[in-house]
Amino acid sequence: MSHGLPTQPAASFVRRRRALGARLNGPALLFSGVARPRNYPANVYPFRPGSHFLYLTGAWLENAAVLVDGERDVLFVPAEDPEDVVWHGPSPGWDELQAATGVAEVRDIAELGQAFGGAGERIATIPAVDARTRFSQGRLLDRSWAEPGAAVELGERDAALADALVALRSVHDDAAIEMLRGAAEATVAAHRAGMAATRPGLREAHVRAAMEASLAARDMGTSYGSIVTVHGEILHSRGYGNPIAAGDLLLADVGASNGGWAGDVTRTWPVSGKFSPTQRALYDLVLAAQVAAIDRVKPGARYRDIHLAAGRVIARGLVDEGILKGDPDNLVERGAHALFFVHGLGHLLGLDVHDMEDLGDRAGYGPGRTRSTQFGLAFLRLDRDLEPGMAVTIEPGFYQIPALLEPGSKLSAPFDSDGTLNRDALAKFADVRGIRIEDDVLVTPGGNEVLTAALAKQAADVEALVGGC
Amino acid sequence: MSHGLPTQPAASFVRRRRALGARLNGPALLFSGVARPRNYPANVYPFRPGSHFLYLTGAWLENAAVLVDGERDVLFVPAEDPEDVVWHGPSPGWDELQAATGVAEVRDIAELGQAFGGAGERIATIPAVDARTRFSQGRLLDRSWAEPGAAVELGERDAALADALVALRSVHDDAAIEMLRGAAEATVAAHRAGMAATRPGLREAHVRAAMEASLAARDMGTSYGSIVTVHGEILHSRGYGNPIAAGDLLLADVGASNGGWAGDVTRTWPVSGKFSPTQRALYDLVLAAQVAAIDRVKPGARYRDIHLAAGRVIARGLVDEGILKGDPDNLVERGAHALFFVHGLGHLLGLDVHDMEDLGDRAGYGPGRTRSTQFGLAFLRLDRDLEPGMAVTIEPGFYQIPALLEPGSKLSAPFDSDGTLNRDALAKFADVRGIRIEDDVLVTPGGNEVLTAALAKQAADVEALVGGC
Ligand SMILES: [Mn+2]
Ligand SMILES: [Mn+2]
Repeated sequence: MSHGLPTQPAASFVRRRRALGARLNGPALLFSGVARPRNYPANVYPFRPGSHFLYLTGAWLENAAVLVDGERDVLFVPAEDPEDVVWHGPSPGWDELQAATGVAEVRDIAELGQAFGGAGERIATIPAVDARTRFSQGRLLDRSWAEPGAAVELGERDAALADALVALRSVHDDAAIEMLRGAAEATVAAHRAGMAATRPGLREAHVRAAMEASLAARDMGTSYGSIVTVHGEILHSRGYGNPIAAGDLLLADVGASNGGWAGDVTRTWPVSGKFSPTQRALYDLVLAAQVAAIDRVKPGARYRDIHLAAGRVIARGLVDEGILKGDPDNLVERGAHALFFVHGLGHLLGLDVHDMEDLGDRAGYGPGRTRSTQFGLAFLRLDRDLEPGMAVTIEPGFYQIPALLEPGSKLSAPFDSDGTLNRDALAKFADVRGIRIEDDVLVTPGGNEVLTAALAKQAADVEALVGGC
Repeated sequence: MSHGLPTQPAASFVRRRRALGARLNGPALLFSGVARPRNYPANVYPFRPGSHFLYLTGAWLENAAVLVDGERDVLFVPAEDPEDVVWHGPSPGWDELQAATGVAEVRDIAELGQAFGGAGERIATIPAVDARTRFSQGRLLDRSWAEPGAAVELGERDAALADALVALRSVHDDAAIEMLRGAAEATVAAHRAGMAATRPGLREAHVRAAMEASLAARDMGTSYGSIVTVHGEILHSRGYGNPIAAGDLLLADVGASNGGWAGDVTRTWPVSGKFSPTQRALYDLVLAAQVAAIDRVKPGARYRDIHLAAGRVIARGLVDEGILKGDPDNLVERGAHALFFVHGLGHLLGLDVHDMEDLGDRAGYGPGRTRSTQFGLAFLRLDRDLEPGMAVTIEPGFYQIPALLEPGSKLSAPFDSDGTLNRDALAKFADVRGIRIEDDVLVTPGGNEVLTAALAKQAADVEALVGGC
């Protein structure tokens, strides 16, 4: 997908706009944004429309906006420039756009000022992510958003729009689920391609290339920057330059973007095709935590409780291995598991891989809930009570992060001094730097469905795929 | 390359900074910029430093700046955040950065205000391409650059810096040529991979995937958005969704980014592996124009003359085919060739694929030269007298663009009415929508060297590679 008409029926978008309108007291205007420049203005990164706009129109259009206003939805688009036809070929006509998005009217975006000039305060909006759009949007609608990238405090009207979008987008409709399924399927294929392409002596870049090529061949991109690394303990690893050797585990966190909808899967596999006993032991532990967590995904479950349950499985396993000492429940209360399982269990998944993170914690944390300040829990992106139609990731991990574990560090010192942490036992697991196992899970009325269930995750099944072609 | 230290010796960067300093009357400050957000602030496009900064430091650093000031060059970088070590792993230390870039000093970028506050007007600078950096840069240095993306008129001091950068960067030093060679080699390999992956019945996306995977496996990206299409007549084609069929020509304009340095190559090949007679005739014509143009690339040659010479070869060939009537020289004067060879012959190549296009036509057009307003020539990006060390692309083409050729169109009507254009003869070439052949050429003291010469371009040689594996 790169440009043009929605790939799903107009009725889906009409329904979403009506549902949004019903939750609002006035009109709302959402912007698609413009492509971001790479090294000079004409050399741009691949464009993707703002997620709120894409959700409400399905249209892959630059410099467009949609007005949601009762029955009078209007799609604003740039007038076709005759020069543009020469360089870019024909664009969809306004009739086509109107039919495909179901809006009442298509208008020239140059008329926005005329349509709303002076009355901007009455129009609810969400700041666009790109600076150019945000600037002109702020000027049009009388918001003080002049400084690019600066944090924005939403006013009352915009906050109500944000809440309405969160309510809608966090519970996926059938059209959304269809797109998420497509993203999941492509993501699974990419991971299989990565496992198959793995061979000792290559570099991380080779495996990443195979995974992203699998997506590109379907005309899809990634929904976030891929992590493909033998240093899984570097959680936001940058670059793919390391050689991959027989004793290494390779961690790959790669997800498709299917018309903007995200897949988000992590697998960790042995470069040699065979886990060492120590690698296998901790892999199975992370897997057990993931399975236990997925078992708890159902309507009414509080996500934070699932996170803590996964933490208890990790803690219990580390006690069994002699790495931690103590009662697993108590270890989790004290945050000892977070020495190794550092991040949150997962997040909402939708048009954004961390869905609606442009709205801060508004989507991930329900009213009256805020982030903990405890190390570990502070990184939990989601603490909702789950509802059917929500999609979440479940992604526990085990990492040995030098900056956290070095003797005397603020985090590990208390667990050293009271004997909780047994460094001799830990030393035996030196060949495990980082493991994460992540799947995409849809909450269903009866429990859940793992959208990425087709991808191997039992250790033996993973081993069978590595170096396969 | 994704983050960190220069891959070339510090001496190269010291030399460049000294050379720049010698051309200036005061200090200059160049910024690397920050990553651009995709759909929310933390989900960013792959970062690449601003080209001026990269040229002067070789450092792949975000939110950094380099002060060029006689012997007292300073590299400003963000102080390491202890949290950052947990998530991103260790960064290069300041000692390493200093040694690898050869600056006199490394300082915290938070001290920029302290270093220059109030004295900003004395410091020459070039606006960063990303809005956040440009905004804070403008505030620090007292420039009026608050509106993201708005055109900037450079003041006298900044214009002098821009001219100095153009003078330096347009004539490549050995370190630059080494990087361009690496980009050319990877680009050639990507095109071979694309030809090999071509088979009727696939989609454009499949071939694009093979080409970009070839780059990604070397840990390189593209230097611009790839064009891979059976609609070569759409010059800035977006998307890769078309099926590729046996009778189609596939046009691929794909170039590597080697540590930021650009390759830029186009080949056009038959999906079936065999050109039709009409396709072959026009392919050979475009190739003849390209070869004739490359022959003229040498010190002292004016690029516009080379462009027009290529136009004359095209015009003569179209006369031979009966498509145009008249004297080739006269046809080119009247712009008739530009009905089919629409764009300019090429552009400067360097750290940017259209090198230094962030400075407008300052790099491409020498003092006293400006763009023609004639259709065709108006799109010529380069009109310099060539010098040894300059790198340019040579990329003639033939296109049947419906919007230009439709009967009665502003451009074609005069040539219809005076009998110059023979539409019956043209109709025989309906299976040729677009052909371009592009190579990267280094001007040498004795003439030129085609950096991408290893890639097949004779029709028979190209045919031999298609569908090869
Ligand atoms: Mn995730
Ligand atoms: Mn080019």
